Amino acid sequence: MPFDAHQFKDIDPGERVLMGPGPSDVPGRVLQALSAPTIGHLDPTFLSIMDETQSLLRYVFQTKNRFTIPVSGTGSAGMEACLVNLLEPGDQAVVCANGVFGNRMADLVQRLRAELVRVDGAWGRAIDPEKVKKAVKGKTPKILAVVHAETSTGVCQPLEDLASIAREAGALFIVDMVTSLGGMDVGVDRIGIDAAYAGTQKCLSCPPGLAPLTFGPRAMEVLGSRKTPVASWYLDMSLVSSYWGKERKYHHTAPVNMIYGLRESLRIIAQEGLKDRFKRHLRNHRALVAGIEAMGLSMLVPEAERLPVLNAIRIPEEVNDLKVRQALLHDFGIEIGGGLGELAGKIWRVGVMGHSSCPRNVFLFIAALETTLRSQGLKVKSGALKEASAVYSTF
Amino acid sequence: MPFDAHQFKDIDPGERVLMGPGPSDVPGRVLQALSAPTIGHLDPTFLSIMDETQSLLRYVFQTKNRFTIPVSGTGSAGMEACLVNLLEPGDQAVVCANGVFGNRMADLVQRLRAELVRVDGAWGRAIDPEKVKKAVKGKTPKILAVVHAETSTGVCQPLEDLASIAREAGALFIVDMVTSLGGMDVGVDRIGIDAAYAGTQKCLSCPPGLAPLTFGPRAMEVLGSRKTPVASWYLDMSLVSSYWGKERKYHHTAPVNMIYGLRESLRIIAQEGLKDRFKRHLRNHRALVAGIEAMGLSMLVPEAERLPVLNAIRIPEEVNDLKVRQALLHDFGIEIGGGLGELAGKIWRVGVMGHSSCPRNVFLFIAALETTLRSQGLKVKSGALKEASAVYSTF
Repeated sequence: MPFDAHQFKDIDPGERVLMGPGPSDVPGRVLQALSAPTIGHLDPTFLSIMDETQSLLRYVFQTKNRFTIPVSGTGSAGMEACLVNLLEPGDQAVVCANGVFGNRMADLVQRLRAELVRVDGAWGRAIDPEKVKKAVKGKTPKILAVVHAETSTGVCQPLEDLASIAREAGALFIVDMVTSLGGMDVGVDRIGIDAAYAGTQKCLSCPPGLAPLTFGPRAMEVLGSRKTPVASWYLDMSLVSSYWGKERKYHHTAPVNMIYGLRESLRIIAQEGLKDRFKRHLRNHRALVAGIEAMGLSMLVPEAERLPVLNAIRIPEEVNDLKVRQALLHDFGIEIGGGLGELAGKIWRVGVMGHSSCPRNVFLFIAALETTLRSQGLKVKSGALKEASAVYSTF
Repeated sequence: MPFDAHQFKDIDPGERVLMGPGPSDVPGRVLQALSAPTIGHLDPTFLSIMDETQSLLRYVFQTKNRFTIPVSGTGSAGMEACLVNLLEPGDQAVVCANGVFGNRMADLVQRLRAELVRVDGAWGRAIDPEKVKKAVKGKTPKILAVVHAETSTGVCQPLEDLASIAREAGALFIVDMVTSLGGMDVGVDRIGIDAAYAGTQKCLSCPPGLAPLTFGPRAMEVLGSRKTPVASWYLDMSLVSSYWGKERKYHHTAPVNMIYGLRESLRIIAQEGLKDRFKRHLRNHRALVAGIEAMGLSMLVPEAERLPVLNAIRIPEEVNDLKVRQALLHDFGIEIGGGLGELAGKIWRVGVMGHSSCPRNVFLFIAALETTLRSQGLKVKSGALKEASAVYSTF
């Protein structure tokens, strides 16, 4: 039987309200930029677009680091680009692990045959810097790596103390900003972060596919003085930097249209301004939490350690996790995330990231969740929308 | 000074005629698909889009291999995905190298600490299978790897004999199809290829950013019986296959919009049909070569070993390489490629790939090149367009 080409219809993904752990809603301007005509990766016009993208990335990373680029892969490729370039076999690597993404770093450290020093923390809590200090004591780690915004738990890890610990230990301070970049203050230069990476589909509100990355001078020095080759050709940042630098030396073919989209999403951020953007995220987060708590539900993470971009809500015991998520998707077009790992079935993860962080989504979510829980027989306290409103009128 | 967001204008990459070594011209339908609304990577609608993309990829690879997916990176990430998953440290790897991309495989084999057995060939010529047979003799290689369409030289490597040599040696046969997939007969199952990868920005005429990849049963067996962990988390195909398989287990966030674009580009190919598509590529190639040779220029590669999708034209000694390419770009909007490595300054690389493979582009290129060469003082024989026309009226 010949292959029937007509079984495939025009693309029609529908429209969703993306309030999961990513992707977030993508603004029309970004989608439109994605569809601009493809040109060559060495075309003079494209080289200018690259320069502008770098300049915009430095703005959101709050850094002057020359080597600030989008890696040609998703956020996890950014993680890998950091570790594969900055670690050599046998190096000590201290990794803070209090969720899926810290664990992923630890896994990768071992694949790269570096010596893993794990600092474990409870899922749903930030890691105590004292614990890290103890773990580092007497060691000469090459890196100290931590997740700023743990997407699996909704925890925000304060970075300042860890930066000092890394500096004192002579280690590079590496930070996963996949979920925080563009929605929270990441202060790469102010805090003294040597290497960081992010994803595009969270608070940048660009489709997934690129990993913004920045290496400071100390990271570049470590990269330049390696004794062994990087165990990846694709992610060898010394080669990639020749393409993104003045030489413009061909490495791999840059994902041209994705970079159009990223540039536009960053331009939207620059137009809003980081300060206003952070405030917007905080405001919508507080309104959402006020509504959730008014319903009688509770948050996984203590207030002081909560991310303003991703909310981990405890699932009431009487409720069927999957049924609720399916109802939200089918009846209201809302995507939220379930728990991962040890939190599977125990939390919902509700993102209010980038373009998704807006009163319209917050009100919709509260109303939709209330409706769904009621229809599944749960007794929900009333007044949630009112409590959310109150946040908007006072903050 | 505060950051000035208004220095960045609306995206305007202009329009080019893409006749370099990739990217090729992207059809409007593909650009439009790219800009469809982003939905979640675990959304039921997206899962269907994944299934359809896999089915379409199997069609262009000419395979029934279950594990046929787009890797979340460009063609080079596909190369890396093949080698990092199928090689372990100490394994023997026979690599045929007669251009930049064969060399890249050899480089990667060494980064992965496998034992490299190089079979070198002249740049601009196919590799003699007898040479490979000799190199393999007495060895027990894990893989035999070769580039089907060497993008740096325009050479087509016949695959049948090498497949037999690999089979006899008990090695996996790995083929780089970056530039051939979608424009030439690759016959994965018919020839007996165990693993292959490609890029999207060549004969598929989708923007760069994904790497179609297929692993046959023997490759999956090798992957499943590894003794050491894959030295990459991002490209660990045993994890990736859990997401693309029935389990749908989250690995990394799929590049949703790029997959929309790929699906549309593959749908266009299926609608045209592979047989007609291969014939179209051959026809436009022959017309282009007829025009080039009528001008008095010559091709790098002997006729029997030429790719029908990428033409390596010798640069006449009297002519300034860069000036000609700049004039083509500025005066006619045409992008072609220069030579790489030892062929830098010696050849132009002119792609007629995918959507770019059409009489309009062929006639334009011949006329523009003739005009440019004349304006630079070269004596060009007349009648090139007529010779190209003659091909269209007889083939």
